[in-house]
Amino acid sequence: MILTVTLNTALDITYRVRGLQPHASHRVSEVTERPGGKGLNVARVLAALGHEVTVTGFAGGATGRVVQDGLRTTRGLADALLPIAGTTRRTIAVVDEHTGDTTQLNEPGPIISPAEWSAFREAYDDLLTSASAVALCGSLPPGVPVGAYAGLVRAARAAGVPVLLDAAGEALRRGVAARPDIIKPNADELAELTGSHEPFRATQDARRRGARSVVTSLGPEGLLAHTPDGHWRATPPARVHGNPTGAGDAAVAGLLSGLVEQLPWPTRLARAAALSAASVQAPTAGDFDRGTYEELLGRVTVAGEVTAA
Amino acid sequence: MILTVTLNTALDITYRVRGLQPHASHRVSEVTERPGGKGLNVARVLAALGHEVTVTGFAGGATGRVVQDGLRTTRGLADALLPIAGTTRRTIAVVDEHTGDTTQLNEPGPIISPAEWSAFREAYDDLLTSASAVALCGSLPPGVPVGAYAGLVRAARAAGVPVLLDAAGEALRRGVAARPDIIKPNADELAELTGSHEPFRATQDARRRGARSVVTSLGPEGLLAHTPDGHWRATPPARVHGNPTGAGDAAVAGLLSGLVEQLPWPTRLARAAALSAASVQAPTAGDFDRGTYEELLGRVTVAGEVTAA
Repeated sequence: MILTVTLNTALDITYRVRGLQPHASHRVSEVTERPGGKGLNVARVLAALGHEVTVTGFAGGATGRVVQDGLRTTRGLADALLPIAGTTRRTIAVVDEHTGDTTQLNEPGPIISPAEWSAFREAYDDLLTSASAVALCGSLPPGVPVGAYAGLVRAARAAGVPVLLDAAGEALRRGVAARPDIIKPNADELAELTGSHEPFRATQDARRRGARSVVTSLGPEGLLAHTPDGHWRATPPARVHGNPTGAGDAAVAGLLSGLVEQLPWPTRLARAAALSAASVQAPTAGDFDRGTYEELLGRVTVAGEVTAA
Repeated sequence: MILTVTLNTALDITYRVRGLQPHASHRVSEVTERPGGKGLNVARVLAALGHEVTVTGFAGGATGRVVQDGLRTTRGLADALLPIAGTTRRTIAVVDEHTGDTTQLNEPGPIISPAEWSAFREAYDDLLTSASAVALCGSLPPGVPVGAYAGLVRAARAAGVPVLLDAAGEALRRGVAARPDIIKPNADELAELTGSHEPFRATQDARRRGARSVVTSLGPEGLLAHTPDGHWRATPPARVHGNPTGAGDAAVAGLLSGLVEQLPWPTRLARAAALSAASVQAPTAGDFDRGTYEELLGRVTVAGEVTAA
């Protein structure tokens, strides 16, 4: 199975309102809620691609129960979230029916105790024994040490399990130094890591900092990859309109599935770029329309250079 | 005991953010949540005043469980909420730390089935047998007939239990026709009921429509009452700054406690106006500071005219 780690899971709530106005009162016309957090989105896309996937991380309180109930409906997805004393955070996306724009409100997340973190480390090591690959996704909740991802990367490497890290800031910086197989920053995260705003150079530079392969997501312009096999750019056929939340998670699922299927890098990148664009057209993160995906897949351009053996 | 009815209970969530901006992403710095809905706020104030109080209405789903867990911590308050298949709504108050202003997002509430409504009607009739007074508070959730309050008022009258109605729109209009003992509209609700924007005249007019006594809340300007005993105006000493949510509910608790304690109208109104002003200074609805309340109580002016016997 593929393992995805979401230390800061969330209950993602979407509200539709007419014309959001600060300091006014709004009647919400439609409420949807679903399990959230980057690793859970990645897992849903992997499950939809036909992979067996296990999710781990933390869940607690009333919102945690709703998250875990929601996971039960996804076929091929096993729930290995660990219980905590705190309450899983909510994120609220307020979609303005007039403009289609989204205003986001993100709760900070529960505090993880040292005992809860130790329990996770033990459970993670156990799960690695049956994992074909692992993705470490998203922010660290309060209480989890900032070097957490570095430790989880090292444990995966020690177990011989390929590991992808999708994080930001200091958690990414420390994680990269532990030499993950793949990192997937976006342009901003990459600039923060390397100090360079030139994506090609910065992607290259991030490899020197420890990542074996670096895949940078450039939003609607696709993906840029520097790997031991070569460097490529994958460009979707046309700008897709919709909800970009979860596009990066779909790309991670594409990269991870391509890795365990041992596909060559250009094929992995085409899949990741097509999944990412297809997810933008889907209403919620972690979803994509299979027809759109398959149609886009044949139209992604992958251009680059293979490293001389 | 005093019975309060909240058909559309809520989980009231408050977020603190720095500078709410539509279409931006916000980190919530502080999350508080508590049982909400007008009747629950009234009940908390009554319990704080030393009355035994029972709350009824509906609760369901994960948010319903959180609401019911939250009620357990209030001494003197008994929970007689009925289970439903749907999920209790959330309301979200987003407080801007810069301006202090609040933006409100209110979920619509679960649909109540005919069987759930029948079960409530039966439970309500049972509860009335041990009630000294009943307050019917707030909006009707989808599925509850618009004439619901009229039926509940009639049942209370048939049981000889004084009944206060705090509602708006068509639910208020129909409820008034069933001749409740007290209604407590605000100026807008009263204008909608009577067509008059002149509060004194409109308060008088609402009595002719069926309410035995009408107490209109005029926000920071206090209360205006027309009763069989006379008419009065209760004015707090000075404009109080703070959160006006729940000020009307505190006034209802003041009126209801004064009714069961058989206090004369001017004393009831002074209590209601002081509680209302004290609740504005408290951070959350259904709370008030006892010291502020007692200090304000002696400084409320009640002026009016007693009806000739």
